[in-house]
Amino acid sequence: MDPRIVTCIAPVNIAVIKYWGKRDEELILPINDSFSLTLDTKEMRAKTTIMTSPEFEKDQIWLNDKEESMENPRLQRCLGEIRKRSQASHKNWKIRICSENNFPTAAGLASSAAGYACLVYALSKIFEINGDISALARLGSGSACRSTLGGFVRWHMGSSPEGTDSFSESLFSSDHWNDIKVLICVVSDSREKVPSSEGMRNGVKTSSLLKYRAEEDVPRRMETIIEAVKNKDFESFAEIVMKDSNQFHAICMDTYPPNPYLNDTSHAISSLVHEINAKYRKNMVCYTYDAGPNACLFMPSSSLDLLAGYLQHFFPRSPDSSDEAFFLGKSLSPRNLTETDLNGLELKTRPNGLKYIISTEIGSGPECLSSKLKSDVHLLNASSGLPIIK
Amino acid sequence: MDPRIVTCIAPVNIAVIKYWGKRDEELILPINDSFSLTLDTKEMRAKTTIMTSPEFEKDQIWLNDKEESMENPRLQRCLGEIRKRSQASHKNWKIRICSENNFPTAAGLASSAAGYACLVYALSKIFEINGDISALARLGSGSACRSTLGGFVRWHMGSSPEGTDSFSESLFSSDHWNDIKVLICVVSDSREKVPSSEGMRNGVKTSSLLKYRAEEDVPRRMETIIEAVKNKDFESFAEIVMKDSNQFHAICMDTYPPNPYLNDTSHAISSLVHEINAKYRKNMVCYTYDAGPNACLFMPSSSLDLLAGYLQHFFPRSPDSSDEAFFLGKSLSPRNLTETDLNGLELKTRPNGLKYIISTEIGSGPECLSSKLKSDVHLLNASSGLPIIK
Repeated sequence: MDPRIVTCIAPVNIAVIKYWGKRDEELILPINDSFSLTLDTKEMRAKTTIMTSPEFEKDQIWLNDKEESMENPRLQRCLGEIRKRSQASHKNWKIRICSENNFPTAAGLASSAAGYACLVYALSKIFEINGDISALARLGSGSACRSTLGGFVRWHMGSSPEGTDSFSESLFSSDHWNDIKVLICVVSDSREKVPSSEGMRNGVKTSSLLKYRAEEDVPRRMETIIEAVKNKDFESFAEIVMKDSNQFHAICMDTYPPNPYLNDTSHAISSLVHEINAKYRKNMVCYTYDAGPNACLFMPSSSLDLLAGYLQHFFPRSPDSSDEAFFLGKSLSPRNLTETDLNGLELKTRPNGLKYIISTEIGSGPECLSSKLKSDVHLLNASSGLPIIK
Repeated sequence: MDPRIVTCIAPVNIAVIKYWGKRDEELILPINDSFSLTLDTKEMRAKTTIMTSPEFEKDQIWLNDKEESMENPRLQRCLGEIRKRSQASHKNWKIRICSENNFPTAAGLASSAAGYACLVYALSKIFEINGDISALARLGSGSACRSTLGGFVRWHMGSSPEGTDSFSESLFSSDHWNDIKVLICVVSDSREKVPSSEGMRNGVKTSSLLKYRAEEDVPRRMETIIEAVKNKDFESFAEIVMKDSNQFHAICMDTYPPNPYLNDTSHAISSLVHEINAKYRKNMVCYTYDAGPNACLFMPSSSLDLLAGYLQHFFPRSPDSSDEAFFLGKSLSPRNLTETDLNGLELKTRPNGLKYIISTEIGSGPECLSSKLKSDVHLLNASSGLPIIK
């Protein structure tokens, strides 16, 4: 029988109601629902080629050009569950996986979510699995389950101890509210980061506030943010997003020892956002931060150029850099600020505070680029079964 | 009748179970108990001279060499209550107040607590008031009530709407555990600070976690910290102190908009503390931060020189400064660190991260320096009734 090959891409997702804390470490079952926006794969995506052949003698994986061990228990669990669910006659053939991101993994930009979503999506294609795959992706990395879908995604925490009802659902497609634009501000000086799985585990163990948040604040916020997205009510959406990000970082501070993921530049970006919103007497923009110092800003398209102008002004790029290397992704026309624009803003400028800014928008989830043996999108050479050297 | 004069000093206090949130803004009644250590007045103190004379035509006040308005409602409330309680025949004579701190008010080191404690203490002396004065000081500045006493002080939140049972009590004298040493690390780059009264008000209004903390975590911690101080159990004391400081700053992050009082240097000091404690497998030292970036470190005397050595190594003073200008207060012999001392510590050094370090210890509360008309300690000239120009 012939070998099979498939190449897929999957998006990054940004949680606006944060997932923090597992009730089951093995099955990656969360202690609260979460809600995210899937970003466009045009700017940021994981890409994975999987090939399977009766000739292969063992499973192999290459990540970002480097062969890695297949022994990772999370990888094994995903693969095992997929083979269990597959009806395909070739389901027990050995596989080769080759995967890469088109954005720096070091940037702390949810690369494992996109990576595991892409892996599971590609596996589901090659082993012919239908139905929900978010619960399978969850076994690789919790937040990966949200990257298997486009638009505005709810991860239901579920209540079953086996995790059967802990899956994701796209509540609104990316077209529903396509006026929302996204700027990802990559902060230069990353603090040495406590990995999120460790920070979470420690939080569950030591923070009394974490439990209160999960039981009291999150359920209320889930309802209000869904309502805000449904009504395209940016004023209300922005407030919930900022409050939930702040509360997540409050929990990280209440963890012992504390995990201060935000640094002075992060706080300066938040201050800028609050000062702009105060100046214009409405929410022009909002921020959210994951377990790292980088800010993700959401705004209506009408604020985009103004915001880019403010960022350029208060966080001027290093003179060694160029505009092309500083503003990445979808094209931007940062406004040249006038005195009126700056009037009332108290912020000090922070030269070199940002490495670069990625401009993007809401996107529609994973895609299969090709499942033909001959295609120039594959990361594995279909004849040799080896990674293609670029 | 003759004029009267009195000069008193009062200490700074450092809360280790923090006061954050009022249930009554007018009467300054807190939503939780708090617990503090009174610092030695030898290193840091407020000093106040009050003079009263039948000749004075109006009340006047000078703070740190500048005449200020007497109209401040908190000042008026303190003065009014004192006059109400006084039996002295001269209780309605006009007064002149002159007050100064011997430490930078800009440093965010609880200067208003020491200032109001000193004012009320001096007023109680000049108008001959006996009994508890902490509830009177509380009307000036909440935490001032803890500065009216020495040693280890509990501020009872009370439950009466009139505030009659919201007062301070010294549970242990400064002698009880005089092995505790204190290093106050004044951080160079202070963030523009939200005043604590405003931050608190906003927290009560917007942070759901604040209420949970006050009702659930604080009462439990009050009991355990009192037990730890009673038993001179530094291991347990240090853990509660750090957890309470972290939770207080968590609440400030959960406030909307957030109040990030800590900066990168503050977080670096906390990291150093946690790394040292991990290295020595016991709590050698602990930190606490008020509504600003400065760290207050407590440690047993056996850790003092080692700690000073670590601070000197990781936060080297500016070359423009001298050791004399960097290490203030009680004399220190910072240890020269060996490779063994540094082994296993991951921290980057932060030159100029600290302005200076004040070495001090636990102290015994306010004192009357003189109530004689002739004394060289007064800040007012007893003949002219005017501030003495230095």
